[in-house]
Amino acid sequence: MTFKRKKVSVIGSGFTGATAAFLLAQKELGDVVLVDIPEMEDPAKGKALDMAEAGPVIGFDANVTGTADYKDTKDSDLIIITAGIARKPGMSRDDLVQTNQKIMKSVTAEIVKYSPHSTILVLTNPVDAMTYTVFKESGFPKERVIGQSGVLDSARFRTFIAQELNLSVKDISGFVLGGHGDDMVPLVRYSYAGGIPLETLIAKEKLDAIVERTRKGGAEIVNLLGNGSAYYAPAASLVEMAEAIIKDQRRIMPSIAYLEGEYGMDGIYLGVPTILGAGGIEKIIEITLNEEEKALLNHSAESVRAVMKVLT
Amino acid sequence: MTFKRKKVSVIGSGFTGATAAFLLAQKELGDVVLVDIPEMEDPAKGKALDMAEAGPVIGFDANVTGTADYKDTKDSDLIIITAGIARKPGMSRDDLVQTNQKIMKSVTAEIVKYSPHSTILVLTNPVDAMTYTVFKESGFPKERVIGQSGVLDSARFRTFIAQELNLSVKDISGFVLGGHGDDMVPLVRYSYAGGIPLETLIAKEKLDAIVERTRKGGAEIVNLLGNGSAYYAPAASLVEMAEAIIKDQRRIMPSIAYLEGEYGMDGIYLGVPTILGAGGIEKIIEITLNEEEKALLNHSAESVRAVMKVLT
Amino acid sequence: MTFKRKKVSVIGSGFTGATAAFLLAQKELGDVVLVDIPEMEDPAKGKALDMAEAGPVIGFDANVTGTADYKDTKDSDLIIITAGIARKPGMSRDDLVQTNQKIMKSVTAEIVKYSPHSTILVLTNPVDAMTYTVFKESGFPKERVIGQSGVLDSARFRTFIAQELNLSVKDISGFVLGGHGDDMVPLVRYSYAGGIPLETLIAKEKLDAIVERTRKGGAEIVNLLGNGSAYYAPAASLVEMAEAIIKDQRRIMPSIAYLEGEYGMDGIYLGVPTILGAGGIEKIIEITLNEEEKALLNHSAESVRAVMKVLT
Amino acid sequence: MTFKRKKVSVIGSGFTGATAAFLLAQKELGDVVLVDIPEMEDPAKGKALDMAEAGPVIGFDANVTGTADYKDTKDSDLIIITAGIARKPGMSRDDLVQTNQKIMKSVTAEIVKYSPHSTILVLTNPVDAMTYTVFKESGFPKERVIGQSGVLDSARFRTFIAQELNLSVKDISGFVLGGHGDDMVPLVRYSYAGGIPLETLIAKEKLDAIVERTRKGGAEIVNLLGNGSAYYAPAASLVEMAEAIIKDQRRIMPSIAYLEGEYGMDGIYLGVPTILGAGGIEKIIEITLNEEEKALLNHSAESVRAVMKVLT
Repeated sequence: MTFKRKKVSVIGSGFTGATAAFLLAQKELGDVVLVDIPEMEDPAKGKALDMAEAGPVIGFDANVTGTADYKDTKDSDLIIITAGIARKPGMSRDDLVQTNQKIMKSVTAEIVKYSPHSTILVLTNPVDAMTYTVFKESGFPKERVIGQSGVLDSARFRTFIAQELNLSVKDISGFVLGGHGDDMVPLVRYSYAGGIPLETLIAKEKLDAIVERTRKGGAEIVNLLGNGSAYYAPAASLVEMAEAIIKDQRRIMPSIAYLEGEYGMDGIYLGVPTILGAGGIEKIIEITLNEEEKALLNHSAESVRAVMKVLT
Repeated sequence: MTFKRKKVSVIGSGFTGATAAFLLAQKELGDVVLVDIPEMEDPAKGKALDMAEAGPVIGFDANVTGTADYKDTKDSDLIIITAGIARKPGMSRDDLVQTNQKIMKSVTAEIVKYSPHSTILVLTNPVDAMTYTVFKESGFPKERVIGQSGVLDSARFRTFIAQELNLSVKDISGFVLGGHGDDMVPLVRYSYAGGIPLETLIAKEKLDAIVERTRKGGAEIVNLLGNGSAYYAPAASLVEMAEAIIKDQRRIMPSIAYLEGEYGMDGIYLGVPTILGAGGIEKIIEITLNEEEKALLNHSAESVRAVMKVLT
Repeated sequence: MTFKRKKVSVIGSGFTGATAAFLLAQKELGDVVLVDIPEMEDPAKGKALDMAEAGPVIGFDANVTGTADYKDTKDSDLIIITAGIARKPGMSRDDLVQTNQKIMKSVTAEIVKYSPHSTILVLTNPVDAMTYTVFKESGFPKERVIGQSGVLDSARFRTFIAQELNLSVKDISGFVLGGHGDDMVPLVRYSYAGGIPLETLIAKEKLDAIVERTRKGGAEIVNLLGNGSAYYAPAASLVEMAEAIIKDQRRIMPSIAYLEGEYGMDGIYLGVPTILGAGGIEKIIEITLNEEEKALLNHSAESVRAVMKVLT
Repeated sequence: MTFKRKKVSVIGSGFTGATAAFLLAQKELGDVVLVDIPEMEDPAKGKALDMAEAGPVIGFDANVTGTADYKDTKDSDLIIITAGIARKPGMSRDDLVQTNQKIMKSVTAEIVKYSPHSTILVLTNPVDAMTYTVFKESGFPKERVIGQSGVLDSARFRTFIAQELNLSVKDISGFVLGGHGDDMVPLVRYSYAGGIPLETLIAKEKLDAIVERTRKGGAEIVNLLGNGSAYYAPAASLVEMAEAIIKDQRRIMPSIAYLEGEYGMDGIYLGVPTILGAGGIEKIIEITLNEEEKALLNHSAESVRAVMKVLT
């Protein structure tokens, strides 16, 4: 039918998944299915029902449902994967990687089975390796398997800059490459306030401090919350990418994309500027890097490759 | 200054308070201060920072900050109280009432001190008695101390009706009076789909079942979540009321209002249809009730009075 | 492709057509093609470009283009027809009907040729007969050929009621049946403020005066403008219907629908309550009318039939 | 009262004024008064009523009224001046300037009388000289008398770039200085797509052509329309500036601002980057210009001074 409403399945009904579902519904981007494991089916249903009940008040039309049965995700147009565990005290990084890899494999099998034409957005950490896993397991074309990290990193950077300059966040743009967190490669010279290079507006030390704070942005929230990690900005970032794809906006956003020669790299998922539209990643944009930036990006890639080696 | 941005303080940084803060920011209704007790100051700060970091992505300009210091709420225009404890196993109702009453008293003292011209919205349960407590403690005029329950109850009712009829929630209206939950007085004859009385569209048994489900709507979510209670729809309801006041919309919404003769009652906070605008509750609308509805409303009032007796 | 953006063609680039195009773009409901006759191609292009240039400021992504070549409308999902002439001094009603009928025929031929799967919304007056003409000429199923009049009439009614009661327009609902303007059948007993029947809130004489003002609502604007007729509210009404269809919202809205037995009528396009969704008019809702309402509706139908007799 | 709704008066009910009023209402930025001369009072009332009648459908609460009596603008918070005549064939530039100057003087006298604390946005051409006139006549502080041209110019530039690159307008930023139209100083090196300098994405000749098209952007629309000039993008630009002020967003936008030493100029209104917030122009941002840009800006200033000499 010409006007079929889109269907988005969000895998993982934790805070990020639920918040993403809520934002998708608020924006009327489609009907939303919130999926979790059988033990968490009732909470998923509860959150879905609660947000559906906000519909008449906020004024959105979107079916939001919770489930543990992937049959309910059938023919999803878009899948957002937030499932996975967080690193716990005493857990080795390799354990984390392999546990989440296992989860990605099982989730991907269900996606392939029920929504073979979908586009997939991955948030689960370590996101570069997990996006790679979903790509390999799904057999989907690379442009339809996309990881999120740069939209969030740059959102944090823009927030800190806006606070420093006491300006609207709407006019601050920030540019990041590479991996998430410590391996982030911020391109300050491609970042602006109202088009004016930040370097001319903020002293170098201050700017360096903001870059450093951005790198540690996830940890800052984790430390404050005490129990858990950020979910508002991560969910908003996922939904921004989802909107670009669903509405075919051809937006320029940093994505974790599969590189085949771009930036001199091959066979690796890494954060690079992309054009997001109906086709998923419609293009990887290659910008010229200076030597320092190249070195940082290479370092970031090495970190990703180190994690990839742990994949089974 | 002519264009001073509004300031809204949300007391209680739990799920409902945080979600309300996020919706306020998304709608750019003002700057938001998320307040909690000293032990929860860091989580409040963490949530506030996380949602502020969503600003550049979603595209809203609003300062969102967390604090345990009421000084930071100074000169708030609107206060939303979500603080309070939930009933725990083994806790008597009276214990719950008195504990939350104590919290209301302490919160209200701070509000009076720092924001003497503010308007207050109360969500804390049992909401009728807690709104009464805030009213008495604050010494504020009655129109500026308002409880929320009917917007949420009718949102649930509208959701269930929309699902039953497979129609847009935008065209379903529902009307409730009285207390929250079991004491809710749904006025089905004042409820419509696209202006058409529901009684002509849905069989009586089905409609009765939906009314009953609405009454138990809070418990339904509690049971599903397993651990905690609803927050998306409650937060959306609070923010809808806040928006009506901040934007002086003069909307007709059910509020927990202080009655002085209306509906034949006096000296009690009860859910009735009101006009919400810049002045808070600008009017209580008295509609004609039939005998059955009168009896239900009286019963609801008795429940409220029973709780009020427990107040110290 | 899964995420193909919708395409909406607006036939007639006059004030209503242009305003509808602008609202469609603002709501990002799809790409918009503004079509006019060759003599008006440049103005259509100019308006389209001007509104496209508002995109970066308002923040919408939608291609808006002007054309006189129906090839550019190819594969439109939705068509909105606003083309046609207005009655000029000295022109007989029959002349008006036949001139606009001719325009409808020529427009419809192009629609059938280039967008055979589209859904059509008709605004051109006399709207009942013109919608009938498009239906007959297109050979489209009746649910995909829809006229607008009741959304606008009820919007005017709601505005006047909101002004009278000094209340938010958001809480006023109004219900109309039958033809446009003088032949409108307002169902006051199905009209409410916050769910409260208007008859209990406004004195009968005042309410009658508002109904009468609503009937003459188009003429009121014509008289004020001096030169031309209303376009903001008509365009908004068209776009509200378009949104319901494009987003498959299943909203209850009054539409000019083809009756085959409903309301005891056959083979006529008349204003009745409908459900608008992905399938166009997904259902005609039959409500119970009292004798007076039946008489008014029959009278309205007679007016429509009188105009239909003029069709060649 | 804490929550008093803002009041915005739009002087001039032509296409730009009316479209600005409609956008202000849609965004619920305040109540809107559409003002025109006595001969145009009825059309102003008609347009205002028509857009008010769109309120229930679009879902906005804003009183929109038309008038020829400045008493109705009393205590406006913001004034938008779109009044004035367009240059007609055979009319000298000096005639145009002096006629519009006379209109500015008479309008300003009324503003000063009824809304002495308001902030004024000026669109009337030649906008630099007309803003200067309003500034002088009003005696208002310079930060509260602001002209519009750069937001529109950069919106056009961004539109053309987005079309050239087939990208979302949301990610294109453009930077202009100086006067409107031919005297515009586009700073291409401060213009980006997703943060990437345009010069690296578009060939120089193509970019030069886009700059040239931007300069002639107003004429392009005039030529297409045949009768009249652009109004969608100009109105959207005014409302974007209005929103930044009303919501105290502290956005970086190009404004026609009064220079007292900035950019080496004094006693002249010229287009420069500014911070717009509650205080109007809260800051003029001085960026470093290269020799070519300086020369262009000086040339632009000379054009403005030439027009100012015509002022009586």
